[in-house]
Amino acid sequence: MSDAEGDIEALIRLMARLPGFGPRSARRAVLHLLRKRDGLMAPLGEMMSHVAETVHDCPVCGNVTLAETCAICADPARAGREICVVEDVAALWAMERGGSFGGRYHVLGGVLSALDAIGPEELGIPKLLERVRGEGVSEVILALNATVDGQTTAHYIAEALDGSGVRVTSLAQGVPIGGELDYLDDGTISAALRARRAF
Amino acid sequence: MSDAEGDIEALIRLMARLPGFGPRSARRAVLHLLRKRDGLMAPLGEMMSHVAETVHDCPVCGNVTLAETCAICADPARAGREICVVEDVAALWAMERGGSFGGRYHVLGGVLSALDAIGPEELGIPKLLERVRGEGVSEVILALNATVDGQTTAHYIAEALDGSGVRVTSLAQGVPIGGELDYLDDGTISAALRARRAF
Repeated sequence: MSDAEGDIEALIRLMARLPGFGPRSARRAVLHLLRKRDGLMAPLGEMMSHVAETVHDCPVCGNVTLAETCAICADPARAGREICVVEDVAALWAMERGGSFGGRYHVLGGVLSALDAIGPEELGIPKLLERVRGEGVSEVILALNATVDGQTTAHYIAEALDGSGVRVTSLAQGVPIGGELDYLDDGTISAALRARRAF
Repeated sequence: MSDAEGDIEALIRLMARLPGFGPRSARRAVLHLLRKRDGLMAPLGEMMSHVAETVHDCPVCGNVTLAETCAICADPARAGREICVVEDVAALWAMERGGSFGGRYHVLGGVLSALDAIGPEELGIPKLLERVRGEGVSEVILALNATVDGQTTAHYIAEALDGSGVRVTSLAQGVPIGGELDYLDDGTISAALRARRAF
């Protein structure tokens, strides 16, 4: 193949690195793009370059944003209330989709890990403590993944906030909405039983 | 969301229009891109814009190319031999992956369809006849899909080439390599039986 055709090959190889794509589906996607050059390929390429160039972490909370601070930190209605601590932007988006949280976030960008030498500094935990003091926060909600590393990190943050006078909570654990007991793991059933409430 | 965050939303909406992607998987892909801004997102956007801007149909065969003519038409070793007639670029790529065809192609860009008012002119069939006369072609291989419209188009081209002295063939129909008879449709088994050969 000539260099020119090599560019199409290079595009397929780049597309194949997207999650959910392999070499076959990437080729199919590129064929689709080649058919819709003006309607889809050109605007998608342009938008991708624009976002890649402009996007950065919000200096307040660590969310991704193209503005100076992210839309959530820039919204005065969301200030001075709860701060929800999440592991990454994926978790932040999931919380926002839930649609029932009206406070701000703090994106750790990972979890504590002795193996990977990720300590409190790397996760911006001192900055979180500073925000709690400075922003008049009423509550810190620990919305970390229910994994060992996630829960270790949650405990560390809870201890660091001890004595600050702010309320520290974590997401409830239990049966998911629409979940069937028969398909749930034992740990979830035990947790749901321990946290049972008056009907 | 502010306009800036709207750009990330717009990127997700554009990604969701790729085949194999829905709103959920597009969001996951964009999160992945946001994590790999410099390593993947920037080069992918740039390559996509470059290809969208430069790509066009090869004026000889209708293949997609970024050069003046496609690499296959530009290769003198592939000239003056067979012309393989395919419905679209996807079929051309599939033939090339097969790796055993050494001639050139003619991409119709569709099939004859009275309903959609697609006639021989729209498919470049007069141009194919011209190429057969001008390029000293030895054989025209009809590699059209085994659908009703594909076979109608194949018959039309075969008739148009009647009397030109060039050999007209079509791909063999039969049991796919690795195929089990129990899983094949009746039409394929009948076709394979009719075309049986000495072992």
